[in-house]
Amino acid sequence: MTRSTSTDDRRYVLTLGCPDSTGIVAKISTFLAEVGGSIVEAAYHADQDNGWFFTRQAVRASSIPFGIDELREQFAVVADGIGPDTEWTLSDTGQRKRVVLLVSKEAHCLHDLLGRVAAGELQAEVCAVVGNHRDLAKVARRHGIDYHYVSFPSDPAERGPAFEQVRKIVDAHNPHAVVLARFMQVLPADLCAHWAGRAINIHHSFLPSFVGARPYHQAFTRGVKLIGATCHYVTAELDAGPIIEQDVIRVSHHDSVADMVRQGRDVEKLVLSRGLRWHLEDRVLVHGRKTVIFN
Amino acid sequence: MTRSTSTDDRRYVLTLGCPDSTGIVAKISTFLAEVGGSIVEAAYHADQDNGWFFTRQAVRASSIPFGIDELREQFAVVADGIGPDTEWTLSDTGQRKRVVLLVSKEAHCLHDLLGRVAAGELQAEVCAVVGNHRDLAKVARRHGIDYHYVSFPSDPAERGPAFEQVRKIVDAHNPHAVVLARFMQVLPADLCAHWAGRAINIHHSFLPSFVGARPYHQAFTRGVKLIGATCHYVTAELDAGPIIEQDVIRVSHHDSVADMVRQGRDVEKLVLSRGLRWHLEDRVLVHGRKTVIFN
Amino acid sequence: MTRSTSTDDRRYVLTLGCPDSTGIVAKISTFLAEVGGSIVEAAYHADQDNGWFFTRQAVRASSIPFGIDELREQFAVVADGIGPDTEWTLSDTGQRKRVVLLVSKEAHCLHDLLGRVAAGELQAEVCAVVGNHRDLAKVARRHGIDYHYVSFPSDPAERGPAFEQVRKIVDAHNPHAVVLARFMQVLPADLCAHWAGRAINIHHSFLPSFVGARPYHQAFTRGVKLIGATCHYVTAELDAGPIIEQDVIRVSHHDSVADMVRQGRDVEKLVLSRGLRWHLEDRVLVHGRKTVIFN
Amino acid sequence: MTRSTSTDDRRYVLTLGCPDSTGIVAKISTFLAEVGGSIVEAAYHADQDNGWFFTRQAVRASSIPFGIDELREQFAVVADGIGPDTEWTLSDTGQRKRVVLLVSKEAHCLHDLLGRVAAGELQAEVCAVVGNHRDLAKVARRHGIDYHYVSFPSDPAERGPAFEQVRKIVDAHNPHAVVLARFMQVLPADLCAHWAGRAINIHHSFLPSFVGARPYHQAFTRGVKLIGATCHYVTAELDAGPIIEQDVIRVSHHDSVADMVRQGRDVEKLVLSRGLRWHLEDRVLVHGRKTVIFN
Repeated sequence: MTRSTSTDDRRYVLTLGCPDSTGIVAKISTFLAEVGGSIVEAAYHADQDNGWFFTRQAVRASSIPFGIDELREQFAVVADGIGPDTEWTLSDTGQRKRVVLLVSKEAHCLHDLLGRVAAGELQAEVCAVVGNHRDLAKVARRHGIDYHYVSFPSDPAERGPAFEQVRKIVDAHNPHAVVLARFMQVLPADLCAHWAGRAINIHHSFLPSFVGARPYHQAFTRGVKLIGATCHYVTAELDAGPIIEQDVIRVSHHDSVADMVRQGRDVEKLVLSRGLRWHLEDRVLVHGRKTVIFN
Repeated sequence: MTRSTSTDDRRYVLTLGCPDSTGIVAKISTFLAEVGGSIVEAAYHADQDNGWFFTRQAVRASSIPFGIDELREQFAVVADGIGPDTEWTLSDTGQRKRVVLLVSKEAHCLHDLLGRVAAGELQAEVCAVVGNHRDLAKVARRHGIDYHYVSFPSDPAERGPAFEQVRKIVDAHNPHAVVLARFMQVLPADLCAHWAGRAINIHHSFLPSFVGARPYHQAFTRGVKLIGATCHYVTAELDAGPIIEQDVIRVSHHDSVADMVRQGRDVEKLVLSRGLRWHLEDRVLVHGRKTVIFN
Repeated sequence: MTRSTSTDDRRYVLTLGCPDSTGIVAKISTFLAEVGGSIVEAAYHADQDNGWFFTRQAVRASSIPFGIDELREQFAVVADGIGPDTEWTLSDTGQRKRVVLLVSKEAHCLHDLLGRVAAGELQAEVCAVVGNHRDLAKVARRHGIDYHYVSFPSDPAERGPAFEQVRKIVDAHNPHAVVLARFMQVLPADLCAHWAGRAINIHHSFLPSFVGARPYHQAFTRGVKLIGATCHYVTAELDAGPIIEQDVIRVSHHDSVADMVRQGRDVEKLVLSRGLRWHLEDRVLVHGRKTVIFN
Repeated sequence: MTRSTSTDDRRYVLTLGCPDSTGIVAKISTFLAEVGGSIVEAAYHADQDNGWFFTRQAVRASSIPFGIDELREQFAVVADGIGPDTEWTLSDTGQRKRVVLLVSKEAHCLHDLLGRVAAGELQAEVCAVVGNHRDLAKVARRHGIDYHYVSFPSDPAERGPAFEQVRKIVDAHNPHAVVLARFMQVLPADLCAHWAGRAINIHHSFLPSFVGARPYHQAFTRGVKLIGATCHYVTAELDAGPIIEQDVIRVSHHDSVADMVRQGRDVEKLVLSRGLRWHLEDRVLVHGRKTVIFN
């Protein structure tokens, strides 16, 4: 599946992380220059704290005289030369990234993401929507996307088979991103590990404040003056994965919990759509518990 | 001590809180109309959650044919008529409010507050600055304000006499506000109770995230994308008092802890100066663990 | 048409503007107390600059022993007592407000508003969508709303009949709000006058910067660091009507015009939906070229 | 004059702009790798619109085996190889940049900048303060900085000699930045040209809104919902130079012009201090009427 963009908008995007040392940029940029690569975007970061180096480079695809497989093969030699701990990816913006959405009953994030894909704002192929309620089936189908209903037992201890079913549906699409778009179910540790670096959650608070259930009620009770939302990678520890994006909105004593829920939705939508975009555009590099965002 | 404003800028400010019922506003506004009061600002809030009513009204002083003592006496009858649980205050903006500042080594909040008072932005009389280090003495004295150094033993268990000394210095001024301008000492419970509703702290995080020590280090380690500051009333539970004001600023992977400390100072100054202004202008009404801010 | 809220959420909302004088609040609140009105929200503003008084009061409908027509009749006497220049409205939140949307080709604001109405976030009845292109017909119809296509000649001088057709379609619904949801056509002066106080536009810049066409291109060329959107009442002078709401988002040298257009859409949606909500909830009082927003 | 930072914090900072082509990064980074340069920060931007390439690189000074003069000499050969239109600078963070401040009567920006320098937040040497009023002389002298009073005739047509005097005082220090910290005088075209790229102004509005005099009055009259400030390079066209930084703050109908002035000061201080910091750290690259900010 190719993007509907003109050839000249197509990019090869390289991301790379490795222990910091002298000459890494020279090696990468010399290689890119030798193959004729016209660099459109380049960003670097050296983390002084843990001695790790990060870069993301976007090269005009038309400037490279061969295909991405050949580029990948040639770059592998460069990466080897940088060192054994080098982690890198190379992707083609001409290939739409695949996304599976997990939902529950809350419609706003689903509406927002599908609307952005339909409008061409978000370059992605939404392969499937999976939900533990039937409410949002028609929203997905209106966009021509399969909706898979999976029944979740009320006893958390008995949800293993349901999660197994979700896993099979998701994995059939080998997606680049599994988005918990207000899924409201805590993923079991093995699924977190299986989808590590690909499962993205939107939490409806400014983490680490108000971990867990009913964060707007917690915010109301505490009397905070700003409420927020956090987009993060899912890890086994609840709401503690690497943060991709956060934002806040001002509230006051006028706002009831219902008002906070309503206003918070606007922040959730913005934060999730930004975080997912950056993930799909390979702008998010994870190291340990933190992210580097090249946006 | 009178304000350097023209007579016509002088206001009598009424704040009132009571169990909500029909007719409260009518009683207050009828009284004010009968004494000829020209209302310049009026704000109301009825908390649906706990059935409490709040109001703040600012009346042009020149429109009342008698003084504030007489007004207070007459209004007491109205307040009695509203009900036995009514809490109210009546103050005169022609009377500068007294403030005592508690500091440690960090200079930015002290500089900022004294600068605002000097520039006439903040209507207050800073009676004294008390510090557990000698570093900031000259800052206070340059503004012609007494600086009291109180030596704090390194063992927290032995700090009782030091706090007693601070209490005496502060209480000698009977201040409307005791501002912990990065004081970095946890007030003992009895002092919290003694200064209840008057002791104001600036915490250098977006509470309830990062309670306690070194919040910027905590924020850096967690990898949050926004850092903040919180101005709140001091209560016996650490960093858990009613929140007056909060704000945040965006940070990124580029920012070291030192960068966060530097950028955070700008937020701390803004948030503390806003919170203190609102407190001194009787714009903050506290009920339980929450505040109503009429700003 | 009644709201799907419980009886106790129903409110009678009074707005009033008049020359400022002593005793207005007393008259209103005494009247409301005498009819048993339980005030849920009340806000006042006295504009020192032009001596005008504004108020908005929301009363629990169930606390009034008679209907809104009787209340209106009784209040008219009070309003007369306040003075001859008093302007006031009294509305029932149990009556959904009628809205007509004018659109062109840009879909995001239409999607956003219809989505909010469908989700119950925005209490309104969208009676019709009128467009000068056929592109968005299916969006309206998917929500079960009539779409009226009106052909606009390319020569602006010949658009009179087209506007006349729009006027007839709109007026058939006698709407409380006519929303120019990126309509991209300048209304003729007579339509501005006819829909005065009801026609709401979203302009895709932070006015008064970048009036007129292609504001994102103007912003890009000028190199501003924030872009914005403005929701305002339509008047005969282009983009110069009373401002209801504005907001901004940060941009950088990384952002192309296309990036600004994309990010700007998020601001446009937020600003328009907030502005329309406040208008429909009678939170916007206009005086001259300025608004008072009781939110 | 050396910075009070440890040796290892010292950086050589390279900025470079040139027509975009393949291989520029490779040339620069290969050179830096060959001299052993440890890159701490690196940022690139290719402007698709005008085909211009920008970069800023910070190298740990201790990683280079020779001094900055030798580095400059060697890099000149690399720059020549990139092309004849290449513009570049190389500076040493161990050398404090010199700053001259121009002021009038408004104290807040002066207080803020001197406070930041005193606190070590802003690495700069303030060589002199020049003012067209005597009011702020004591502020400068309290910080041990010379204050030069220059009398400006009331007739703008007769101010030539006064500006000539200012020019002499400023030029005696050969400063890296001439900051108009609310100077309130329009620089003549020849001074704008003479200090091109070094004269920095803070305008108290969100440009291009409210160019010229009394922007808060203009904002109040227009009824905008946000007010702002803009830090920009001074050019001959009033308030139209390349924008370095902007920010805004929310206002409401409650705010008088005086309230806007007070709140706007907080934005002015933040925006000017950020803009000046970026300029002094060589983070601002100007091309035509726009800036690239590597922060």
